[in-house]
Amino acid sequence: MTQLEYAKQRIPSPAVKQVARLEGIPPQSLLKLIWQGRVVIPLSKNRTIKKVCGIGSGLRTKVNANIGTSTDRAKITEELTKLRIAVGAGADTVMDLSIGGEIKKIRREILAHSPVPVGTVPIYEVAVRAQKKRGDFLRFGIDDILETLQEQAEDGVDFFTIHAGVTSRSLLALKRTKRLLNIVSRGGAILARWIASHRKENPFFQHFDKILDLAYDYDITLSLGDGLRPGSIWDATDSAQIAELKILGDLARQAKRRNVQVMIEGPGHVPLNQIKKNIVLQKEICRGAPFYVLGPLVTDVASGWDHISASIGAALAGSFGADFLCYVTPSEHLRHPSVEDVREGVIASKIAAHAADLAKGIKSARERDRQISQARLKRDWKKQIALSIDPVKAAEYRLSSRPKLQDVCTMCGKYCSIKLMQECMG
Amino acid sequence: MTQLEYAKQRIPSPAVKQVARLEGIPPQSLLKLIWQGRVVIPLSKNRTIKKVCGIGSGLRTKVNANIGTSTDRAKITEELTKLRIAVGAGADTVMDLSIGGEIKKIRREILAHSPVPVGTVPIYEVAVRAQKKRGDFLRFGIDDILETLQEQAEDGVDFFTIHAGVTSRSLLALKRTKRLLNIVSRGGAILARWIASHRKENPFFQHFDKILDLAYDYDITLSLGDGLRPGSIWDATDSAQIAELKILGDLARQAKRRNVQVMIEGPGHVPLNQIKKNIVLQKEICRGAPFYVLGPLVTDVASGWDHISASIGAALAGSFGADFLCYVTPSEHLRHPSVEDVREGVIASKIAAHAADLAKGIKSARERDRQISQARLKRDWKKQIALSIDPVKAAEYRLSSRPKLQDVCTMCGKYCSIKLMQECMG
Repeated sequence: MTQLEYAKQRIPSPAVKQVARLEGIPPQSLLKLIWQGRVVIPLSKNRTIKKVCGIGSGLRTKVNANIGTSTDRAKITEELTKLRIAVGAGADTVMDLSIGGEIKKIRREILAHSPVPVGTVPIYEVAVRAQKKRGDFLRFGIDDILETLQEQAEDGVDFFTIHAGVTSRSLLALKRTKRLLNIVSRGGAILARWIASHRKENPFFQHFDKILDLAYDYDITLSLGDGLRPGSIWDATDSAQIAELKILGDLARQAKRRNVQVMIEGPGHVPLNQIKKNIVLQKEICRGAPFYVLGPLVTDVASGWDHISASIGAALAGSFGADFLCYVTPSEHLRHPSVEDVREGVIASKIAAHAADLAKGIKSARERDRQISQARLKRDWKKQIALSIDPVKAAEYRLSSRPKLQDVCTMCGKYCSIKLMQECMG
Repeated sequence: MTQLEYAKQRIPSPAVKQVARLEGIPPQSLLKLIWQGRVVIPLSKNRTIKKVCGIGSGLRTKVNANIGTSTDRAKITEELTKLRIAVGAGADTVMDLSIGGEIKKIRREILAHSPVPVGTVPIYEVAVRAQKKRGDFLRFGIDDILETLQEQAEDGVDFFTIHAGVTSRSLLALKRTKRLLNIVSRGGAILARWIASHRKENPFFQHFDKILDLAYDYDITLSLGDGLRPGSIWDATDSAQIAELKILGDLARQAKRRNVQVMIEGPGHVPLNQIKKNIVLQKEICRGAPFYVLGPLVTDVASGWDHISASIGAALAGSFGADFLCYVTPSEHLRHPSVEDVREGVIASKIAAHAADLAKGIKSARERDRQISQARLKRDWKKQIALSIDPVKAAEYRLSSRPKLQDVCTMCGKYCSIKLMQECMG
């Protein structure tokens, strides 16, 4: 049975028990959320992991870190370092987006070393294999897709991004909208090219039932990719994006009927004043399915600092109900991320997730803020540092600048407002 | 005559003409906004500056960088470097918050070198002088305050933060609220201590008319400080904060009547879901006066990364109508900021301001995003970098990781979605 089947029968699986404990909610409430399709637990039947993770309504906002090789840089050890750093910084899941080097080997290494759920975007391996075998990344069919999915499932991948929403219909909407940037999703672009070149419907869409059968067999969670996500704030929330979202909503219903857990991917580049609308639309169209957003970036101009642009959008999206934040690194739009980029990306995203959780009223999040503020009142630096989102950096900053008066910091010295007030108000 | 008097008589001063041109709005519209008290132009009669700056409704969101010495670190050259770096990164104004070393000399150096408006918090110098002269930082009276204000005004300071809202009444509200952190404003704490120790009313409040006379004489803009801003998300938007805000609203009306430009300072630590309320309240209570927010930080736990926490809050605040963002550096809560901290703080704040401007519908902001996205479509790296918020970092990232195919980047290589789509859709 899949997690969804267990939930429908109100039977708490070990994973459900674990997640319920981690989130501090009763297992029966969690089962209901899973059964309603509002929460997913990405966990393949073929895997056991240390840190199980629930994603969706009523739970803490989760963070995903993308790692993986590129055609220009494909060092397995470096990607494994990124995995370690990402998980250390608090990533709840990772995705292996490798497109360079020995993809299969890299995936297996990441799966072997990851204590958290691992996702992939199988279309990448399908395209890279077609390129290698037939000299053309577009020469593949449904059999090749199923073969790759089967292999990845056997390896134990916990969730797949499936770009089944890039269809003849949504591409027609795309042509009509006259975007600044047509498609900025790698998977989306490959499939749009495939459709144009083969003059056939997207095989992921056409054969979605077969993909569901496979996902069911391994209890793999599907993450329905948004191939038509906007890549500029000028293209945000346009008819192409909504056309695809509606298709994803239909596919999500099919998945739930087939007892396959499903979540929905979302933008992208979205100005601040359209973020709420994006969340509301997704939750409505996809009947409360978990929303997995990439950023969103709130401006197109933050190259080199896109982790901050994404953190702004992600915090806001999370506060309105987005459940799962895909990090963005400072290298977005510029290069394959370095290990340090990965670290900064995860931290920026964790800040957004925590800020969203405070707004969502998650008790454990609020409690952490209470504790650090109490430590601040007492000028208990050890505790302040331990409770920080990044104790290593906080400690480094503190130690780099020692005050004459030990209990304050070098910003205010004897004029520390907290100390001044404590001396008079207690 | 002051800027406000010129505005009331519908006479565009040179500064008004300059700001109108920079913002792309008719001088008469700008004059109306100034006359209504919805826009200020901080510019002392005693100064000429290269970059005049308008702050308020309908204008681009502005960014302030705090610099200045501390009791633990007081190197003039370092502060001048911070000034240069801050302005280079796009700070629209700076504030000299020096409390260590030769305060007067530092201020004069900053004023001499700053191409942008300079603000101060005069209570700092008042307290430091009392400490030096009388061995007690609380041994000062209204004459000492006026003397310091006069000197700073003579030097050419463009705007003063005046903590006149910390009064017996607002402190009573503070006691009743039982906050986690009572006062986290340095100026606010000094005045609360002064009131407690002298058992008299806050001299800035008591003698506000004298301060207005002086501000009028030099056409100094007053920034009414929020000494009772919350220092934890647990204390946000409480009755103490609102009690002070109401006092600031009254003082703002007095200032406008006296033909002194005025803006209002705001929090602080505010969870995401309370930010809109904070802006709406301020605009209502202070009749549209420009709102100058410090962050707000959307969580208490981001020590070492508070520039990101602040950037999230500032972007949201800006999108709801905050006009002026005081940057927060990564060193907040930990140490006196370094030059690099200043740079990172300004950039994070600029991203927030720009994201807010996109949401506010500022045309020039939207145009910049259109241009960078077009450059992205054409894979014109030179232009992408030039249009970035931080061209130096963007260029450094790009150059650090050269792709085999020159027109793409090392993230996607030949699978660059933009290139794939351009090859098929043009």
